Amino acid sequence: MRVAIIASPFISVPPKRYGGTELFIAQLAEGLSRMGVDVVVYANGASTVSAELRWLYENDDWPIDCEMYNSLKDLNHTSWAVNDCVQSADIVHLNNASGLVFSRLRGPRWVYTIHHPHMAQLSEFYSIFSHVEYVSISDFQRQKESLKHVRTIHHGLDLSQYRLQNRKSDYLSFVGRIAPVKGVHNAIEIAKRSGIPLKFAGEIQPLFRDYFQSCIKPHIDGTFIEYLGEADLALKNELLGNSMAMLFPIEWDEPFGLVMVEAMATGTPVVAFTGGSVAEVVREGTSGIVCQGVEDATARIDEVRGMKPAAVRAYAQQCFSMERMVRDYLLLYQEIYDELTISDESTVGKRAAA
Amino acid sequence: MRVAIIASPFISVPPKRYGGTELFIAQLAEGLSRMGVDVVVYANGASTVSAELRWLYENDDWPIDCEMYNSLKDLNHTSWAVNDCVQSADIVHLNNASGLVFSRLRGPRWVYTIHHPHMAQLSEFYSIFSHVEYVSISDFQRQKESLKHVRTIHHGLDLSQYRLQNRKSDYLSFVGRIAPVKGVHNAIEIAKRSGIPLKFAGEIQPLFRDYFQSCIKPHIDGTFIEYLGEADLALKNELLGNSMAMLFPIEWDEPFGLVMVEAMATGTPVVAFTGGSVAEVVREGTSGIVCQGVEDATARIDEVRGMKPAAVRAYAQQCFSMERMVRDYLLLYQEIYDELTISDESTVGKRAAA
Repeated sequence: MRVAIIASPFISVPPKRYGGTELFIAQLAEGLSRMGVDVVVYANGASTVSAELRWLYENDDWPIDCEMYNSLKDLNHTSWAVNDCVQSADIVHLNNASGLVFSRLRGPRWVYTIHHPHMAQLSEFYSIFSHVEYVSISDFQRQKESLKHVRTIHHGLDLSQYRLQNRKSDYLSFVGRIAPVKGVHNAIEIAKRSGIPLKFAGEIQPLFRDYFQSCIKPHIDGTFIEYLGEADLALKNELLGNSMAMLFPIEWDEPFGLVMVEAMATGTPVVAFTGGSVAEVVREGTSGIVCQGVEDATARIDEVRGMKPAAVRAYAQQCFSMERMVRDYLLLYQEIYDELTISDESTVGKRAAA
Repeated sequence: MRVAIIASPFISVPPKRYGGTELFIAQLAEGLSRMGVDVVVYANGASTVSAELRWLYENDDWPIDCEMYNSLKDLNHTSWAVNDCVQSADIVHLNNASGLVFSRLRGPRWVYTIHHPHMAQLSEFYSIFSHVEYVSISDFQRQKESLKHVRTIHHGLDLSQYRLQNRKSDYLSFVGRIAPVKGVHNAIEIAKRSGIPLKFAGEIQPLFRDYFQSCIKPHIDGTFIEYLGEADLALKNELLGNSMAMLFPIEWDEPFGLVMVEAMATGTPVVAFTGGSVAEVVREGTSGIVCQGVEDATARIDEVRGMKPAAVRAYAQQCFSMERMVRDYLLLYQEIYDELTISDESTVGKRAAA
């Protein structure tokens, strides 16, 4: 069985810093390769994924500056990739909505992982391509989709890349995009109210520069509130691993939240706000707590002190390992590969006018 | 020879009101049909074009409200259209940049009319698809592109739909989008300085509502400066035909400017500002004047009074008739249809990584 996984051309696989989807693709491709599956990844030329790599655009191109051009670039990359693999691949695994239009080409089976937060208009678009096998990354997300074929496969990580840190220091951590929905301002507020210092890292996206300037930067003093720039794997191990708790004080319905798994992998419990996937990823009382807001989190912050780092990591190992994720995807690929009948496109055909 | 012309799904072909590209497609398809060419138009179901029509989306959807969803809708429509015609059409004529990615499919020859104003990043995108035959709609535009295959074919109109009006009334007219680049504010200024009333019509796009409110609306008094809403064909015949001159006081490089031909078709001369295609469309001294700005236009406005309506229309007939445009496109189609070798895609292939 040959599997083609199509990433975007903008961020390398795995990402050097920001890029949840690219991290997912790297882990999936490497895990499949280790299990002897013939995998090809279509990404940019700066990628270092341990699987066959094909690319049209050589370098990273992030953040996006010209939306129109970049959507054409993405489309060109995807069109080229699909044309390259449509004859040879048994499974084509897509990760961006525009790529779905190429699933009209017959030959392989099509899989699509829904990375994007739910939007009614996107769901309507997905439903056009009813022959595609959809994967939601949380049950929260699955329940919002009324697709014919959809199942949840939680993300997983190669936990060998994260060190269990048994000794925690008395500070809170935050890793994520510096964006309102990620709640960096809530993290600062929790730190101030609880009197526990905060160290945080993450990409300041151009769109949210004002937010950073007006809501975040004034609080940074380099001692009590400390900003460490963008985080690579080494920094995440350090920052998350030594921290008594990672804050995940979101203000949106998180589709998955891979960074919660990263924290747990270092044995650090997560103090999260409820929303989206959170209740599926954090096991209340074992690997963290799920709170209702700043006040609730501040009041309950000491609960995490009793959680054993080894138990936190064990939970991550059990539920969110790369191996588990890879097995789940392999099962899905195998199921549709074994189906003798090619999904028909009758729904699409019927919508054509007479 | 079977020709498939792909329009967008947003505006019907021909358009009920706004839509230069859709008007072009309607005229081209109808003209080709009359010459016995087998034509299919992919547009929305509200289209009334006199040629075979196929559609996926039934209704008009304009103006665009959700950019992301609409670009997916456009892509879906185009992908469906290409899949529907790729086996049966000899020529596929595209009109939007994202559609170019489907030209990787072999079989037909591909033609692309460049409707969009020049942008370096778009040109870079076009150059990827070097097997496509490009048509620029003015020489001004052609000179900006360094494509392998590109030729200019000026737009043309079915002049039988425009009445020659020999008696002009003493007012100026303007028809076009109510947008800064179209210079409605300049039209108002010229009217005020020359003491000649202005009647204007055109779509207020959501993006430019502020411009309308602050720069245009305060001047509208219903007598000296009069706004007539959006213009359909009947209103254009009336408004343009009776006017002593149509103003075209642009502040950008107009790609073509079909409304100049519409004015000339009614025998009304055009007072245009220089930029883009203007010098190619207006024949100085015969069908209008090309000015350097508000002051110049005001000073020279009386020059148009000497221009004979019949001569203005005769010039439009000679240079911008539907028949001439259709013949030019047919010649292009025939040329590439007769080529025995299919354009190879070696440039695209070489960009793939080893």
